[in-house]
Amino acid sequence: MKIKVLSRANLINILEMPEVIKGVESVYKTKAQGNVVAWPLVEHKFSTGALMDIRSGGAFGEVGIHGAKLLNNFPENAAKGLPVFTGVLMAFDSETGLPIGVMDASYITSMRTGAAAAIGAAALARPDSESLLLVGAGLQSIYLLGATLVKMPGLKKVRVIDTFAQDNADRYITTIQERLKNELGIDASEVVFEAAHDMKEAVEQSDVILTITRSTSPLIMKDWLKPGTHLSCIGADMVGKEEIDPEIFRTARCFADDAKQCCTVGEMEIPAKMGILSPETVTGEIGEVLAGMKPGRVSDEDITVFDATGLAVLDLVTAKTAVRTAEEKGLGTTVEI
Amino acid sequence: MKIKVLSRANLINILEMPEVIKGVESVYKTKAQGNVVAWPLVEHKFSTGALMDIRSGGAFGEVGIHGAKLLNNFPENAAKGLPVFTGVLMAFDSETGLPIGVMDASYITSMRTGAAAAIGAAALARPDSESLLLVGAGLQSIYLLGATLVKMPGLKKVRVIDTFAQDNADRYITTIQERLKNELGIDASEVVFEAAHDMKEAVEQSDVILTITRSTSPLIMKDWLKPGTHLSCIGADMVGKEEIDPEIFRTARCFADDAKQCCTVGEMEIPAKMGILSPETVTGEIGEVLAGMKPGRVSDEDITVFDATGLAVLDLVTAKTAVRTAEEKGLGTTVEI
Repeated sequence: MKIKVLSRANLINILEMPEVIKGVESVYKTKAQGNVVAWPLVEHKFSTGALMDIRSGGAFGEVGIHGAKLLNNFPENAAKGLPVFTGVLMAFDSETGLPIGVMDASYITSMRTGAAAAIGAAALARPDSESLLLVGAGLQSIYLLGATLVKMPGLKKVRVIDTFAQDNADRYITTIQERLKNELGIDASEVVFEAAHDMKEAVEQSDVILTITRSTSPLIMKDWLKPGTHLSCIGADMVGKEEIDPEIFRTARCFADDAKQCCTVGEMEIPAKMGILSPETVTGEIGEVLAGMKPGRVSDEDITVFDATGLAVLDLVTAKTAVRTAEEKGLGTTVEI
Repeated sequence: MKIKVLSRANLINILEMPEVIKGVESVYKTKAQGNVVAWPLVEHKFSTGALMDIRSGGAFGEVGIHGAKLLNNFPENAAKGLPVFTGVLMAFDSETGLPIGVMDASYITSMRTGAAAAIGAAALARPDSESLLLVGAGLQSIYLLGATLVKMPGLKKVRVIDTFAQDNADRYITTIQERLKNELGIDASEVVFEAAHDMKEAVEQSDVILTITRSTSPLIMKDWLKPGTHLSCIGADMVGKEEIDPEIFRTARCFADDAKQCCTVGEMEIPAKMGILSPETVTGEIGEVLAGMKPGRVSDEDITVFDATGLAVLDLVTAKTAVRTAEEKGLGTTVEI
C-alpha cells in the first residue's frame, strides 16, 4: 500500500482555504445526517505534567474518512530546544479501510478551525454584513480572518482588538494584508483594517464578531450588541474558558458544531452550568443549517452565535483534501507501507 | 521533525527475533514495575460489517515509548482485490513526545506474538525440556516456533499438529527448516521435526506445548498432560475462543501477560467464567516472573500455563526496535513531518 506523508511545510504549500472550507462544510452536513461519529477521547497525563491525547472518529457517506490524531504536549521540551506541541494524524478511506495519509496535525487544525468560524459566520450573519470584529490577534487569528474574508466577500472593514496586549492589534493591522496574501493566498487589498482599543465601541460597530482568545471571563457583554450581530466563538475549548457574556445565550439563536461537546467544553459550557441552555435547547447544530434542516437566522434583528469546539473528523477531511491536492500537485512524499 | 516510515517489506528485512524478544521482555518487566499503561480500546463496527479498532498505550521508564495502532478489518475488500486487514502504528518517544515512526503493524504483531509465547515458555518450562509440540500450523505458527527455538536452544524435537486440517502438518514439516532459515534467519538444522496426528499421544510426549489455533473448544485435556509440562496458549484472543481444558487451570501455575485482559478475552476467559480462576487468583503476570518478583515454576512436577492476549505496547516497543535497526542499517524511508 502507498500512503502520502505530509510535513507541516508541505501542508502550508498544499492547502487552500476555499478547499478546506468545502471539506469542513461537507462534514457538518454529513453530521446533520447522522453519519459522523466521534470516538471516545483517550487521554494520558504524564508524571512530568506532559499530556497526550488521541482524538478519533469518522465521517461516512460521501465524505468517507476515518482515523485518529495523536497530540503530545510536553512543556519541558522548551528547555531542551525541542517542540513542545506535536500532533500526527493518520487518515483512512472508510470505504476500504486502507490508509491514505500520515501527516503533521498542527497546520491542519489551524486551517479547519478558521474554516469553521467562517462557515458559522457566513451561514448565520446578515447577508449584508460589512464590518467584522476580530477579537484576539494571536497565532490562530489569521486563519479565522482569512477564511471569513473568503466566505464573506461583502466585508469591507475589519477591526482587530487584543484585550490581553493592546499593542498587538496595532502591529497586526500593519502587516495583515501582506500576511493574508503570502500565507494564505488571500487578497484583502480592498478591505480596511483598523486596530480597536475599546471593546464596547468596537462591538457596537460590528456586524460579525470572531473571538479567538484564551479568555476565562466574558470580554463582550450582551448590552453592547446591536440587533442583527453574529458571533463565532472559537477560543473556548476547555472547561473554564469563556469569551462572551453567558446572558447572550438567553435570547440569541445559538448554534454549535456539536451541541453536547460545546455544552461541556466550549463557549456554551458556563451558560449550560448556569442553566441558560443545554444540548437539548441549543437552537441547532451548524450542519442542520447548512443541510437546510433548520433555519439559521430568521430575522435581521436576531443575535446569532456559533460555538465551535472542533471535531477530529474535521482534521481528517482536511487531511483527505491535502492528500488529493498533494497528488494533483506532485507534492509530499509517497511511501510504501 | 524527521520520522521513519517502514513498510511490511522493510520490517521483514529489519526485524531480528532475538531483538524483538529483548524488547518484549523489557515491556513485561516494566509492566511488573507498574510502568506500563493500556489506554481504553476504541472500536467501531461499520454498517457493512467492517471493523476498526484503535489500541494504544505506553511503556515508560527505560522503555520510553507510547503510541497507537489503528487496525482495519474490511472483509468486503476481498471481492475488490484489496487487502482485507491493514494496520498502521504510530510510535512516540515518551521522554519528548516526538514521533519516531509510522509503520505497517501486521508483521510487528506477528513477531511480538511469537516472542511472547517463547518468553513464557523459556521462563516457565523445565530447563531440561527437549520436546516441543506446536498446535496449529497456520500463518502465525512460524513466529512462535522460531522465537521458542531462539529462547530454548535445548529443544531437540518439534512435533506439529493441525487438528483442523491434518495434512497441513505433513506439508509444514517438509519446508519449516528452510522457512525458519529464509524468513527468520533461524538455523533449526539440528532439530527433528515430525507431524503428529494424535493429539493425546503428542501431548503425552511433549515438555513444552504452544497453541496457536482459532479453536472454540478444548483441544488438549488435563488428563493427557504429563507432570512438568508447560503450555503457552496464544490462539484465544477474543470471547469464546479456547484451546485447552479449563480444568487445567485448577491446579496449574497460571501466568498471564495481563491478568485482567486474559480473564476477559484470553484462554483464561472460560475458566474465569466457570469460577476456576480470576485476575486476583492467577498465579502472576509473566513480567513478575521475569523481574524476579514472583516464582514461576517451583518444581519439576508443576504444570505451568502462560496465556498471552497481547498489548499495544508490545507493538510499540517492537516499532522502536525496528526504527533503531533501520537507522543502523540505513533501511526504510526517513521523512520530514
